Amino acid sequence: MRILAKDIEAAARDRPGEEAEASGWVHRIRELGGVVFVMLRDRSGLVQLVLEEKPVSADGSPLTPESVIRARGLPALNEKAPGGAELKVRSLECLVRAGPDLPYQVNADASRIGLETILDNRILSLRNPKIRGVFKIQAVIIEAFAEYLRGQDFTEIKTSKLVGSGTEGGTNLFEVEYFDRKVYLAQSPQFYKEVMVASGLERVFEIGPVYRAEKHDTPRHINEYVSMDLEMGFIESEQELIELEKGLLAHIFEAVARKNGPELALWKAQVPPPDAVFKAPTVSYDEALRIVNGETGGGRVFDINPEAERILCEWARREKGIDLIFVNRFPRRHRPFYTYPLETGGDGGAARDSAAASTMSFDALFRGLEITSGGRRQHDYGAFLEALPKFGLRAEDFGDYLFLLKYGCPPHGGFAIGCERLTQKILGLDNVKEASLFPRDRRRVEP
Amino acid sequence: MRILAKDIEAAARDRPGEEAEASGWVHRIRELGGVVFVMLRDRSGLVQLVLEEKPVSADGSPLTPESVIRARGLPALNEKAPGGAELKVRSLECLVRAGPDLPYQVNADASRIGLETILDNRILSLRNPKIRGVFKIQAVIIEAFAEYLRGQDFTEIKTSKLVGSGTEGGTNLFEVEYFDRKVYLAQSPQFYKEVMVASGLERVFEIGPVYRAEKHDTPRHINEYVSMDLEMGFIESEQELIELEKGLLAHIFEAVARKNGPELALWKAQVPPPDAVFKAPTVSYDEALRIVNGETGGGRVFDINPEAERILCEWARREKGIDLIFVNRFPRRHRPFYTYPLETGGDGGAARDSAAASTMSFDALFRGLEITSGGRRQHDYGAFLEALPKFGLRAEDFGDYLFLLKYGCPPHGGFAIGCERLTQKILGLDNVKEASLFPRDRRRVEP
Repeated sequence: MRILAKDIEAAARDRPGEEAEASGWVHRIRELGGVVFVMLRDRSGLVQLVLEEKPVSADGSPLTPESVIRARGLPALNEKAPGGAELKVRSLECLVRAGPDLPYQVNADASRIGLETILDNRILSLRNPKIRGVFKIQAVIIEAFAEYLRGQDFTEIKTSKLVGSGTEGGTNLFEVEYFDRKVYLAQSPQFYKEVMVASGLERVFEIGPVYRAEKHDTPRHINEYVSMDLEMGFIESEQELIELEKGLLAHIFEAVARKNGPELALWKAQVPPPDAVFKAPTVSYDEALRIVNGETGGGRVFDINPEAERILCEWARREKGIDLIFVNRFPRRHRPFYTYPLETGGDGGAARDSAAASTMSFDALFRGLEITSGGRRQHDYGAFLEALPKFGLRAEDFGDYLFLLKYGCPPHGGFAIGCERLTQKILGLDNVKEASLFPRDRRRVEP
Repeated sequence: MRILAKDIEAAARDRPGEEAEASGWVHRIRELGGVVFVMLRDRSGLVQLVLEEKPVSADGSPLTPESVIRARGLPALNEKAPGGAELKVRSLECLVRAGPDLPYQVNADASRIGLETILDNRILSLRNPKIRGVFKIQAVIIEAFAEYLRGQDFTEIKTSKLVGSGTEGGTNLFEVEYFDRKVYLAQSPQFYKEVMVASGLERVFEIGPVYRAEKHDTPRHINEYVSMDLEMGFIESEQELIELEKGLLAHIFEAVARKNGPELALWKAQVPPPDAVFKAPTVSYDEALRIVNGETGGGRVFDINPEAERILCEWARREKGIDLIFVNRFPRRHRPFYTYPLETGGDGGAARDSAAASTMSFDALFRGLEITSGGRRQHDYGAFLEALPKFGLRAEDFGDYLFLLKYGCPPHGGFAIGCERLTQKILGLDNVKEASLFPRDRRRVEP
């Protein structure tokens, strides 16, 4: 009966003299004074095997790193061994011999290896416990996101990633040959989330891939990422969404702190204390620019660019004790045309639809990076129709959207958290690609 | 403070005389003896509003079906009202007036409307409580799948849907224009699941979209579907996978029975009792053909086709009391080339790799339909290389796969459950498209 590496110590303590079996990969082999130490790696961690002779493969050749083995022996306490215990091996079987020409050193310190090398060797680099740990944390983020929203009466949905056209206009879309026509990979589930709010589910979330055909090559962009999206009906403004996101992030941080202790330790990372999240400030776009210009001692910043995002987070950390800040009321020119106006004037929509008019929108910035964009959406059929030409858009390109709004779509809004960006910032990774199992960028589509 | 339709009855009982507010959609309007009854629909269900005069929109026009309203009034017990209570309205506000030309009757009996009409009007047809109910059940299936596997130490992964080539060979792939090259939409996360088993996570699952560019137009095929995939290391045979799937299905059925009572009732559907799942038989491919030919009184069935799937499920129901059967040991000619052989002979692989040789593979058939395909995979580098030319495949097309196997890939296997097919069979839907929010078929890519 196999036991996991993490349970060897308890076995040595609770059942001394009873044989145990461990399986996994050969992480490292050392010889010291006639004794051979094999570090065995399995899904739970590492455990030291102690052998009196050099282990061999089935064909008698020396055991190679990354081979898959099964060892039987006696668990024994040993303060000097990692985890405080080891397995004194009586028999060892090599299940699969790894090629001796290993092209990537799995047990090396990942921080000394360049990102391109790590990604070029993704199949092997993911075996490194620290690198693999990124995705154990990501799994908990995804679980906690869904768990919190279910507790708030949200329903999980799975919508199509193949769309006839883009919600955000026709740029930055990947084209797909779909039988005898062309369709596109969805940039976001935005339209479908809104359909499902109006379907009467009212509160929905989706965790799935989205695609941006952007030619960026920056540490914050990838062309395919996991979007953790939600949308809810019957809201008044983006304030309710900001409150929801605080509860959501606090829950995610709490879950990661509770379940991912070993992975956080490998990365020397900490999540913010869940209660600090509720102290995160909300500032308007205009206030945010004033803060940035105040911090930099000039009046030269006119936009919340990546540098401004870093400054705002530093400001929030100094003033409120948390590296998290919400910026709301973006001017219309910075948001999708369907963003709900802050003021709905009676002037035929002139002030409401002007480029400078404030909208019920927000971003969340965490540790210097935008991780969320969201807001209330225009749900009023008449106002939507009236606004389209002002943004150079044609009603005939929005058939399904107009259909949705025409027949009773409640006030609603939502947001999305980029899963890789949140993972990146929790761990302090330099590049968002490190938080994607098989990242896709302009040059990379393999493995 | 808004309360949900389902809570009006409790409010009437527990807090008589206290005003309540309900919001939602106008499902139906009736006048009877000078009293107006508006059936209000929200995410929790339906509740009857009682008004003394005809309700109007903000502009004074008559209230239309599907308009979004907010009503305040007194909850009152009434045995004749659906749910046993109603709201005696003091004030009613129309938040959004639905166009009076509603092109699809939301409150009509969905079973009397053709599938094409339902799908053509998807934005409105999803509002029908019975149709929407399909997706409340689907959300629980997805949740329960993940929950059970986490309990078995599986880690959730999210892998790329853009691949350089197809795992199953190059057919039936949708082509994507990816910057200056062509890539494909993944048919399954098979390769990535195996990479993640070998990464040391050992046990992984993924819930995500997969794509098949098949020209089928049958009630059991769609071109984009949600695959609930898993893969695990250190198994001996497909038997362990079958046992795992029984536990998984029992858990899903239990969760649906517990959480989806109202939706099951709308569809007059029942899930199998969880303990019956463990009585589901496993028969080999050859035995399955014998059973089918025995049942049909002939010897003319040479393959497990859709008709044979129905016969096998009927047989299992009669013999074992459950409409679920596992068929294992498929001959190699019916399975992907990387399926593990039942016998690994010492004859240079001739018997092992022959088209008629049995493999460690299985299908699960539920209520007459294949819902799962899986098996143990070839993890041995030498045997894999040796087999390729026998299937007309070239090693140079399997670079990443060979790399994975060369450096210590443990014995492993897995399976996938088609989420829409399982939903379809739980509810007894005629067509799998009914179980997809926005189904994609050869002609349909909208909405």
